[in-house]
Amino acid sequence: MDFKEVVNTRRAVNLFDPEKSVEQSILRELVETAASAPSGFNFQPWSLIVLEDKEEKLRLQKHAMDQPKVSQAPVCLILLADTQGWMAGNRFADRNFDEMVKTGAMREEKRDWFNNLCQSLYGTDRETGVAFACKNTSFFAMTLMLAARDMGLHTHPMDGFDKKGVKDEFNIPDRYWVSMLIALGYFPEGGHMPEPKWRKTYDEIFVNFNP
Amino acid sequence: MDFKEVVNTRRAVNLFDPEKSVEQSILRELVETAASAPSGFNFQPWSLIVLEDKEEKLRLQKHAMDQPKVSQAPVCLILLADTQGWMAGNRFADRNFDEMVKTGAMREEKRDWFNNLCQSLYGTDRETGVAFACKNTSFFAMTLMLAARDMGLHTHPMDGFDKKGVKDEFNIPDRYWVSMLIALGYFPEGGHMPEPKWRKTYDEIFVNFNP
Repeated sequence: MDFKEVVNTRRAVNLFDPEKSVEQSILRELVETAASAPSGFNFQPWSLIVLEDKEEKLRLQKHAMDQPKVSQAPVCLILLADTQGWMAGNRFADRNFDEMVKTGAMREEKRDWFNNLCQSLYGTDRETGVAFACKNTSFFAMTLMLAARDMGLHTHPMDGFDKKGVKDEFNIPDRYWVSMLIALGYFPEGGHMPEPKWRKTYDEIFVNFNP
Repeated sequence: MDFKEVVNTRRAVNLFDPEKSVEQSILRELVETAASAPSGFNFQPWSLIVLEDKEEKLRLQKHAMDQPKVSQAPVCLILLADTQGWMAGNRFADRNFDEMVKTGAMREEKRDWFNNLCQSLYGTDRETGVAFACKNTSFFAMTLMLAARDMGLHTHPMDGFDKKGVKDEFNIPDRYWVSMLIALGYFPEGGHMPEPKWRKTYDEIFVNFNP
């Protein structure tokens, strides 16, 4: 699909065809397309819990303001952002350094320098780790929502849930920030597609604090 | 451009043609395309400082590990994430509520209920406000990077900068989190385009903490 058409036809839809499941091969292609998103130093601090079973989706729904789309959508994703995804000792962070050395982008002797740089950028307090994790996980999530549209699917990203409830229910380790839920599936034939909502214009987005 | 081609040809490039500027009409179209990104309750807590003047870009570069691309790119964007973008009294948050009432998505009597909900989701501590701001600003930033590619441009998102230095230099109010810098411009003819970096596979992204 043309890029502009993908962007212009994406909506946060409230209806999903409960009879139309998302094939495993489609889900894999979608996630691996989303994984091409950039991230700070390529750390890719994103993980997914994929819920397809009705009972599991209902377990999530009760922590998500009982929104029906959580269980009506054939797939509901819990997006986890690893606040320690930059840290030496983290499986993917260590692999990332090794890959940089392998491609010649980094030298092995710079390992301590690099770890200290990341510590200063992402590890000075809890906020910087949360910002790192959420920022990059949203690059992944946004690419996933657009890729879904390109593949004929629709999505609905959700913030309305109890973070602690979801973490406890699904046994999620503390270092993850539950950054959002995304309902995923096919829009039902004959359903009413919502109109685009208002948006800030260029002049409203542009700021300048020069005295 | 086809969506998959946009995704597959996006790279964080280190080279920009310093002779090829970005027309104002292109920049406006780019930003307004990016602004179609979703956000929690449509709060759109993103703002941009747009630097095109060489002296201004050099003022930024000295806080960004002296990375040459900051001033070589014809445009360098400072992305600001409003940690209070959900809060009653915030200009755009108030407008957003009014727009919801206007379209029938919300009733005026629910104003206090809605403000309390947002307070519980985004205002319980500094972390939740930072997560809200960074998460949504990355939806905007990711759409901007892909839209840039669709329009023949390239980008480089940057984390390597001193947040406090940038805030002081550009007089940025405290409520904003400086979420990233993005260098924007045209890739030079004959330049060496980097290969895609390694990515986590579906099986590496998928997690399950069930006992």
